[in-house]
Amino acid sequence: MSHDDNTHGEFQLIGQIATSFAAPKGTIGIGDDCAVLPQEQGYETLVTCDLLVEDTHFLFDQASPRQIGWKAAAVNFSDIAAMGGVPVGTFLSMALPPKVGAPWVAEFIEGYRSLSDLLHAPLLGGDTTSSPQRVCINVTVLGQCRTGRRKLRSTAQAGDLVCVTGPLGDSAAGLHAILHHAIDTPEAYALVERHYHPTPRIDEGQQLAAHRGVHAMMDISDGIGSDLRHILDASHVGATIEVGRIPLTSHLQCYCQRHALDPYELALTGGEDYELLFTIDPHDEPGLGVPHHIIGHITPEQTLRWLGSDRDYRGYVHNVHAD
Amino acid sequence: MSHDDNTHGEFQLIGQIATSFAAPKGTIGIGDDCAVLPQEQGYETLVTCDLLVEDTHFLFDQASPRQIGWKAAAVNFSDIAAMGGVPVGTFLSMALPPKVGAPWVAEFIEGYRSLSDLLHAPLLGGDTTSSPQRVCINVTVLGQCRTGRRKLRSTAQAGDLVCVTGPLGDSAAGLHAILHHAIDTPEAYALVERHYHPTPRIDEGQQLAAHRGVHAMMDISDGIGSDLRHILDASHVGATIEVGRIPLTSHLQCYCQRHALDPYELALTGGEDYELLFTIDPHDEPGLGVPHHIIGHITPEQTLRWLGSDRDYRGYVHNVHAD
Repeated sequence: MSHDDNTHGEFQLIGQIATSFAAPKGTIGIGDDCAVLPQEQGYETLVTCDLLVEDTHFLFDQASPRQIGWKAAAVNFSDIAAMGGVPVGTFLSMALPPKVGAPWVAEFIEGYRSLSDLLHAPLLGGDTTSSPQRVCINVTVLGQCRTGRRKLRSTAQAGDLVCVTGPLGDSAAGLHAILHHAIDTPEAYALVERHYHPTPRIDEGQQLAAHRGVHAMMDISDGIGSDLRHILDASHVGATIEVGRIPLTSHLQCYCQRHALDPYELALTGGEDYELLFTIDPHDEPGLGVPHHIIGHITPEQTLRWLGSDRDYRGYVHNVHAD
Repeated sequence: MSHDDNTHGEFQLIGQIATSFAAPKGTIGIGDDCAVLPQEQGYETLVTCDLLVEDTHFLFDQASPRQIGWKAAAVNFSDIAAMGGVPVGTFLSMALPPKVGAPWVAEFIEGYRSLSDLLHAPLLGGDTTSSPQRVCINVTVLGQCRTGRRKLRSTAQAGDLVCVTGPLGDSAAGLHAILHHAIDTPEAYALVERHYHPTPRIDEGQQLAAHRGVHAMMDISDGIGSDLRHILDASHVGATIEVGRIPLTSHLQCYCQRHALDPYELALTGGEDYELLFTIDPHDEPGLGVPHHIIGHITPEQTLRWLGSDRDYRGYVHNVHAD
């Protein structure tokens, strides 16, 4: 963990962070120029990073530092899950403006740590520096998977079923409730929880990666309407999705009814659910031990079709390469 | 490399970046949830990251995007050098405000790539997103070294010689010339070059790491006055430094004479030279194949002493743990 001596008392800050995260045996974490990780034969290293900027990804006055800390870690762990890997360690860079004091940082670290502890992925390094105005956070996560086991976006096959590991749209509805000051029912509260505390599907990702019939996999961060297109583009295939089969929670349906929103629109375009989206050989689907929902299938022609049920979803019919 | 669909045309941006950096054989780079790196037995993975924020680390109107790109990569490669490692791949996260257009990004990438090409360390992933106002850049570099070969800050021994791989103070003088609009002589120009284009000492770091007599090592990023204290703190020792033996370039001496500056003050406190600072058993120093300058020695008592020659350097006498 490096630092700027003259800003934010980073010596103390690094010390505070370092005592919160002890490096595992055989690993050198915070305190030198680099972290040092031992390597195991037969494994591949996975690396992902995400940059969160105040006013782009979160509002300083709306989200608690604990929520921001959890989410900053979660979005990266979700990328590791999407490859079928396990996280090994994390690296946190923070640029902090003068308005941010030690209590904010301590609470942020608490949120960050509560998830990284849960996933046994310690903080091993990073950078702290000052920022003129806005909080800026970069998280890098290293993970590993057995050599050849990782699931890519580029390996979907025509005839595969398209599946998701859980309900979609909750996070987008939670954001709606935050922005519209509508956190006034148990349903809305539950949706906001899903927005701030997404659970990376690490176990599910590993089980799916271990299954030969699973061909392509990714996490749902931008909304399935956008994310699925990445798989289709990378695999040079298309898909037909039956919108009515997309799983929705009762919370979402209640909230949407109350606020005259279309739950399927939130589910398709909202993003930030961090469920896994995967394609699987139809012969292998019945024996799959991971809870999932079939929502469509992969087609050879490179077109993405949304089949609406009681509503007209032609608005979502895109040519894969159209935009 | 992940992205936010609705900002900055990141699809195009990622495509532009991806075509600039082809992933090496056996490695999966930009385009999936994570980068995938193969592992080699007998090696340890090194990880470092640095976050650069506009107006904290660079002025948008003063530095060219090419210079910022080079430097963003260089400061991280220098941390890998300081452990005695070789860089394997890099990850670049950029938050870009509306004022930044495609030409700025292209030039930034050119600067970044010119150094990463030189060091055979390809860009393998990252994140692009939008920022309300300021450019924010995080670089993560993965490196490797033979198991057990890495040099730490915590292993200096009383009796060791303290050495540096090259002259100090040039970068700080270059910054002075930039801020005082004094780039009006060949000397000043050379100093500004050293400020914007530091050369990470990768080869030197590896040679030093391979040498048993070298005990502790780090790079000089904050100024030797601050950096040396990290080694002393971590190793529970002190040092006596002979200020007159600190190597200075003739450029620096000319510039300081012209502007009535103390070159030793710049060399001790300026930082950003990115030379290596190391300690070595005095019996091993004569046979060391790496160009270096002896500037002092490690003492058992935990005090850092600066012995001035023609000037009084008592101002720099710190107790190691004083601040």
